[in-house]
Amino acid sequence: MSFKITILGSGAALPTFSRNPTAQFIDCNNRHILIDCGEGTQMQMRKFGVKFQKLTHILISHLHGDHFFGLVGLLSTMHLLGRDQGIVIYGPIGLEEIVRSQLEIEGAKLGYGITFKHLDGKTPGIIFEDKLIEIHTFPLKHRIKTNGFVIKEKTKEHILLGDLFKADGLSLTCIPKFKKGENARNTDGKIYNFQDYTLPPAPSKSYAYCSDTAYYENIIPFITGVNLLYHEATFTEAHKSRAKATFHSTALEAATIAQKANVKKLILGHLSARFENSKEHELEAKTIFKNTEVVEDGTIYSI
Amino acid sequence: MSFKITILGSGAALPTFSRNPTAQFIDCNNRHILIDCGEGTQMQMRKFGVKFQKLTHILISHLHGDHFFGLVGLLSTMHLLGRDQGIVIYGPIGLEEIVRSQLEIEGAKLGYGITFKHLDGKTPGIIFEDKLIEIHTFPLKHRIKTNGFVIKEKTKEHILLGDLFKADGLSLTCIPKFKKGENARNTDGKIYNFQDYTLPPAPSKSYAYCSDTAYYENIIPFITGVNLLYHEATFTEAHKSRAKATFHSTALEAATIAQKANVKKLILGHLSARFENSKEHELEAKTIFKNTEVVEDGTIYSI
Repeated sequence: MSFKITILGSGAALPTFSRNPTAQFIDCNNRHILIDCGEGTQMQMRKFGVKFQKLTHILISHLHGDHFFGLVGLLSTMHLLGRDQGIVIYGPIGLEEIVRSQLEIEGAKLGYGITFKHLDGKTPGIIFEDKLIEIHTFPLKHRIKTNGFVIKEKTKEHILLGDLFKADGLSLTCIPKFKKGENARNTDGKIYNFQDYTLPPAPSKSYAYCSDTAYYENIIPFITGVNLLYHEATFTEAHKSRAKATFHSTALEAATIAQKANVKKLILGHLSARFENSKEHELEAKTIFKNTEVVEDGTIYSI
Repeated sequence: MSFKITILGSGAALPTFSRNPTAQFIDCNNRHILIDCGEGTQMQMRKFGVKFQKLTHILISHLHGDHFFGLVGLLSTMHLLGRDQGIVIYGPIGLEEIVRSQLEIEGAKLGYGITFKHLDGKTPGIIFEDKLIEIHTFPLKHRIKTNGFVIKEKTKEHILLGDLFKADGLSLTCIPKFKKGENARNTDGKIYNFQDYTLPPAPSKSYAYCSDTAYYENIIPFITGVNLLYHEATFTEAHKSRAKATFHSTALEAATIAQKANVKKLILGHLSARFENSKEHELEAKTIFKNTEVVEDGTIYSI
């Protein structure tokens, strides 16, 4: 099972030579998800070898241009490349009209269907699940309604200790319950304890995406314990008042959230174009949370 | 006086590693004009050293995405960079609504004004002029209404031969007429011939932009004799039926137009992503029109 995050764009509103506007590609157990789609995302996907046509879900956090101006171009290109498989786009109300009106004026009838699922930017919950993954949303705190996301593997099955099970001659009908971590009644009428015949499931991995947002402790319950947290750090503490005014975070604030949420690893992005490099961000964050990296366009993180 | 064309994007609908979607920057006598604005144009401008804030006019040929999906991102960026000077956008009806609705949903109030001038894609004429340049539009032949453009220097003044003029003791009041190429009555009551006291003006240079279009001889009167003609050549003759079906041109067709319009030089662009290089286009065009080049992103042409 794979769980990989490819950073397609790690800049803020103003693109720079090295940082495109925001976009990330997530491959979680063969579910292919794009989070945000700033201008130029399709070129970045091509550059970093991400296959367009595998995408099944696109999540748009909010309607600032650096998070969605590349969406309609990507959708057009997927059509021109012959896509016929439908796609689901989760995003704020208003996105659908923008996308459909541009596709319509082009006069192109797409060869695939788009389903829009509207997010209101204030109601947390599961927005997608299948047998292997779940996608959750929760509200961030920004100038406009903005959605955070957690992508997590479903709770896995307990691992059956086949030899013990066989040795005790239990009925196969016990297996589904044991795998779910429940005790089961055997054909002999007795109840058997699942812990005697299974090992605990492999841990379910999870990734949280928090951009754009001011420092906001309300998000902690939603991201507690994730393996990898992406948190925006548009600024450093030297620009704290600017961060506050624009509802963005400093590297220190992002690290504080990571620490309080007890995540395994923190990655920082959405750096303002004013910073020539990311050293200051990294140093600042590490004073609070050691396991921090600042992302670069093209970096791949495996969980 | 300068007249330079910077190719910002020379690809067709599908961007490739080396060819971005269509955009060109024209500096004509210090008038800074962008023609078309495919996705990623703002990054290309940065890459090729074109100053955003000098732009005064943006011309959009038609509403296929590869010609305008970068516009709203560029307008946002100019705002973020502190622009306060207004800008005029010439383009098809429908463009204004697309741009304004996206800027509006962003919630940003631009620090500068945008004036839209609607082009109907069928009426030729002058759309802008000042004392140094003129911009003309004329209809191309594509799947949707599409505008071609000619940017030309205004007719220049005749060059006064000051020594001769002084030697004959003519009145200064003759000068304005002589410079316009008209005979003038001197204070002695006699009429003097401007040709005796002037040299003909330096020739006015001109640039024509024809993309996207099928082979269309009706454009010839509008582009006859231009110094530089950009004509799309999405395909080569080997793909002639595809060119016809999609209302695009082959390299040979573009060269035929260049020859019939007696232009000085032809440059070809808007190459389909199916071509790995431009050799075939160049060879094919040169069989008809010798002075042909296929453009690359970043090339600058001086007229």
